[in-house]
Amino acid sequence: MPVSEQLRNDLEDVANRLRISSVEMTCASKSGHPTSSTSAAEIMATLFFNELRYDIAEPKSASADRFILSKGHACPILYAAWEEAGLLSHEQVLSLRKIDSDIEGHPTPRLNFIDVATGSLGQGLGAAAGMAYVGKYIDKASYRVFCLLGDGESAEGSVWEAAAFASIYKLDNLVAIVDVNRLGQSQETSLGHNVDVYRARFAAFGFNSIVVDGHNIDELLAAYEVARNTKNQPTAIIAKTLKGKGLVGIENEDNWHGKPVSADLIAAIQARFHGSSKGKLVAQKPINDAPVVDLHIGSTVMAAPEYKIGDKVATRAAYGTALAKLGDANPRVVGLDGDTKNSTFSEKLLKKHPNQFIECFIAEQNLVGVAVGAQCRDRVIPFTSTFAAFFTRATDQIRMAAVSFANLKCVGSHVGVSIGEDGPSQMALEDIAIFRSIPNGTVFYPSDAVSAERATELAANTRGIVFIRTSRPALPVIYANDEKFEIGHGKVVKKSEKDSILLIGSCVTLYESLKAAEILEKEGIHAAVIDPFTIKPLDGKLIAEHAQRVGGRVVVTEDHYAAGGIGEAVSAALADIPNVRVRSLNVKEVPRSGPPDALVDLYGISARHIVEAVKNFH
Amino acid sequence: MPVSEQLRNDLEDVANRLRISSVEMTCASKSGHPTSSTSAAEIMATLFFNELRYDIAEPKSASADRFILSKGHACPILYAAWEEAGLLSHEQVLSLRKIDSDIEGHPTPRLNFIDVATGSLGQGLGAAAGMAYVGKYIDKASYRVFCLLGDGESAEGSVWEAAAFASIYKLDNLVAIVDVNRLGQSQETSLGHNVDVYRARFAAFGFNSIVVDGHNIDELLAAYEVARNTKNQPTAIIAKTLKGKGLVGIENEDNWHGKPVSADLIAAIQARFHGSSKGKLVAQKPINDAPVVDLHIGSTVMAAPEYKIGDKVATRAAYGTALAKLGDANPRVVGLDGDTKNSTFSEKLLKKHPNQFIECFIAEQNLVGVAVGAQCRDRVIPFTSTFAAFFTRATDQIRMAAVSFANLKCVGSHVGVSIGEDGPSQMALEDIAIFRSIPNGTVFYPSDAVSAERATELAANTRGIVFIRTSRPALPVIYANDEKFEIGHGKVVKKSEKDSILLIGSCVTLYESLKAAEILEKEGIHAAVIDPFTIKPLDGKLIAEHAQRVGGRVVVTEDHYAAGGIGEAVSAALADIPNVRVRSLNVKEVPRSGPPDALVDLYGISARHIVEAVKNFH
Repeated sequence: MPVSEQLRNDLEDVANRLRISSVEMTCASKSGHPTSSTSAAEIMATLFFNELRYDIAEPKSASADRFILSKGHACPILYAAWEEAGLLSHEQVLSLRKIDSDIEGHPTPRLNFIDVATGSLGQGLGAAAGMAYVGKYIDKASYRVFCLLGDGESAEGSVWEAAAFASIYKLDNLVAIVDVNRLGQSQETSLGHNVDVYRARFAAFGFNSIVVDGHNIDELLAAYEVARNTKNQPTAIIAKTLKGKGLVGIENEDNWHGKPVSADLIAAIQARFHGSSKGKLVAQKPINDAPVVDLHIGSTVMAAPEYKIGDKVATRAAYGTALAKLGDANPRVVGLDGDTKNSTFSEKLLKKHPNQFIECFIAEQNLVGVAVGAQCRDRVIPFTSTFAAFFTRATDQIRMAAVSFANLKCVGSHVGVSIGEDGPSQMALEDIAIFRSIPNGTVFYPSDAVSAERATELAANTRGIVFIRTSRPALPVIYANDEKFEIGHGKVVKKSEKDSILLIGSCVTLYESLKAAEILEKEGIHAAVIDPFTIKPLDGKLIAEHAQRVGGRVVVTEDHYAAGGIGEAVSAALADIPNVRVRSLNVKEVPRSGPPDALVDLYGISARHIVEAVKNFH
Repeated sequence: MPVSEQLRNDLEDVANRLRISSVEMTCASKSGHPTSSTSAAEIMATLFFNELRYDIAEPKSASADRFILSKGHACPILYAAWEEAGLLSHEQVLSLRKIDSDIEGHPTPRLNFIDVATGSLGQGLGAAAGMAYVGKYIDKASYRVFCLLGDGESAEGSVWEAAAFASIYKLDNLVAIVDVNRLGQSQETSLGHNVDVYRARFAAFGFNSIVVDGHNIDELLAAYEVARNTKNQPTAIIAKTLKGKGLVGIENEDNWHGKPVSADLIAAIQARFHGSSKGKLVAQKPINDAPVVDLHIGSTVMAAPEYKIGDKVATRAAYGTALAKLGDANPRVVGLDGDTKNSTFSEKLLKKHPNQFIECFIAEQNLVGVAVGAQCRDRVIPFTSTFAAFFTRATDQIRMAAVSFANLKCVGSHVGVSIGEDGPSQMALEDIAIFRSIPNGTVFYPSDAVSAERATELAANTRGIVFIRTSRPALPVIYANDEKFEIGHGKVVKKSEKDSILLIGSCVTLYESLKAAEILEKEGIHAAVIDPFTIKPLDGKLIAEHAQRVGGRVVVTEDHYAAGGIGEAVSAALADIPNVRVRSLNVKEVPRSGPPDALVDLYGISARHIVEAVKNFH
């Protein structure tokens, strides 16, 4: 459809107003990224005022189109767009980067129009793909998802994981726009203005891939139209632009990344105005066809565990059972896995509720990215699973999920040396530390099948980032099916009045602690044993109480490295209590392949070593 | 060049012997991946016995060709190849996965023919690209680098980061071979046998990209010849194969991932032998043109720091200065960065020694992967740098670098809330935990420019994985240029006989602790202050000694989350000492944008909060 001169002029004026506001706000903050903003001015103007459907009365309504600024450092242009739309005042945008303002240096969901925090590059497209998947297959709604990427960040592998995912699932409601402004932070990008290479890459990854002049209104609008009419594949718009476009003496020049420019440059931009006024162009309203969703799962809804004390069941298997039950209880519980579903047991949900499962293949960054996108606007509760070791691949995505205040559940199996023969590459030994670092996060480490099912249920009912650490070996059920579990409440699994030491362990090392207690008891040494259940929050009160009761000696044993593990968590929790002493047994070197029990012994966390530690603890 | 029938028959026999050995060893171990191995039998036979140059007398000689099995779970076929070459006995390979054997479930450099550990998928090509870069530009030698990938792992973004890097630097000494056997662990891969898509993707990422039948000797040899003759770009050989090839009833069937098969299947493979005997084909010897390298850097070689006490210098800037000096001292000190060199100050090395610097663009997984590859066979000492927050992107690569026993230096800048206005996406608050989890790793947290320079020097002289945490703010120099620093030795920066409390901090929080001590002193409360210098190993002895000297009260303050940070490290180090009590101040929530000092105060780690903590510590 040809573009009228009026519309072109109006959109050019919008673009230039966005430019000016970006310059003004970064002048006010004396820091920020005006040049990365102005290259995207026409892209943002056309998107926000001739393509996206939204309503400033409710920017994040379920039915509104989504926009993700993957190149988060260019947020001045995004704030300017919402200012132009009437959501933000000019005074608000001028508070950019101030300590009392939510107009932050990179976007976060503290703002009511941001779905996911960006600023760690290359993460926007994965989240966008997650939103688009939910829109197409779960909400089955009209809303579409637009993601603006930088060219520099397109070097991140996570972009290509997301691109592959989008094409596998034929996400024709997804549009990626790459602002190819040629210049990175410290030098030219590796591809410069070779837009054909970007085009070929996105095409090879299954996109309908189009090159446009990113400063040409007509070409941008035509590309959006192509995207709207493309079926069964996502669209990539490769927009050739100039960094600092419109800023005289700075446009397309190196060494201007992340630096404010002189406000004197505004006059030249103003000189190009056609005379169209702010507020003239108004976005179309959303088509209100996204269903109303209730993510609530009552604790009575889920069927209770059905085990017998002493049954040998791996906690990873119990997790799968519980996840399938959650799927029964709420159709918005969704499982995601990275081609390990037959090991993590997330396949139990897939088998029962195939529409509630997203296979993400071997791409763990995107596994987490898609989940973060899927949970936006409270559409689903995503449970992601893979080997816990491979969540380390997505550490940055998990870190950013925290900045996004995401409602994300991660379940990592095959932890520690107790996985056995597969060897160190498959053994998670730092996962507790990583997930404990998430502010307000929850870390479950269930020790048997009953507590693993309860952890899964609690995870669904707990907003925020939750990690469940599951284990490979099948170990005996120790809790009754009606045992009550709460976050932050440990269990005293063994105690007597004669106790003279406290042992703490989880799962494999809880059993080793119990075995050690049994051996010690025969020699007249009585030990209390605590299962913390959640490592974060840790039940410091219970542990302190029993530590003091037994006379102050505590031995913590874990199938994890020392850093940030249970031993350090307990040491820190008890650090302020005089006359309580903690010793920790943990894995101290890179392990090797071997039978699980032999490895548990070789690396010093078996019952034998606990007994020895107790006897040497004077 | 046409292949003679004799050579074809000989190589087919080799392939089938590799198959049989792979089956036998996984039968012996009752676990492992025979089907993922047999799909690659012809690839391995042709590579190891008609293409690679090596000598079993010294498999990892500097001049030998490199082979990286990125699909590490297929290691039985690799062990079988080295058995066929005469390096390993059949008895040795039958010890697969046993606790006293280095023939592990996934390959590690405990074996003298493995350069990097694999098993976390998608990491081989980055390491291979690092080796190829060093071969082409630093060693300027004839050796070539071959990497065998699985099709499933080609979904990992890290593969595409590495591919882009290889084409940017025209690594024509690098050959990627993709074993497209169609089947993943839990289902078919997303692309199945669509080899043309793989071809197009590698072509779009700058490779000369060829499709072959991966079981056809002639096609494989022809492809290697093409690769040998391709200049200025790497080659990708997309090999269409069948998983379980040669195993009757299992070939190309689902549900056989990671499972041993019946030894009865061997007879059918034997029936296809042409009669060529083991040992007939011998690899060509390396061309011995890789230079002899000395990585030694004497502590007297590097120029001493040149600051004045009180000079305001950021530790990141001092790092850049020291790195450039190291570059003067040894031409094998190499810097790598991810387009942040003007922020991390690694550009100081680039400016002085452009041939000792590798720009890796915005792809942190590959930044670390290339460095791990580069350090193999002691060719260089790689110093990688980016914002510390973005090392979280490479956590899995760092984890695997530990399994590779790599000699890797990571230098992360812009840590904690003290970076200021850029906001939480750019703030590293979990990096200490991640790097402390590396067994035998070293974590430096220098507090001023002098100690930052010394940390850099010590890092170069310390084998293993070393992290240096550098900071954004310019802060006063507190140490004399001739102050001696040692790993595991802290500094008492303030003490008196009247001390009644011990304060511990690093960099920003060391200054806050000193400020607090000054304020407290005016009120008659005397505090000792310790700078730990290395957080791992921590100088527990010094800290314990002073904690006891001052009467048992310790306040640790850090610009980091609690988990795995300095507070927990100190708590654990003192956990066994009665009557020593530790309180920790750290960042407890997701921070926001704002001025550095205001954020340090807002998040409770400023002098004011330390003073308050001391006064409330009874």
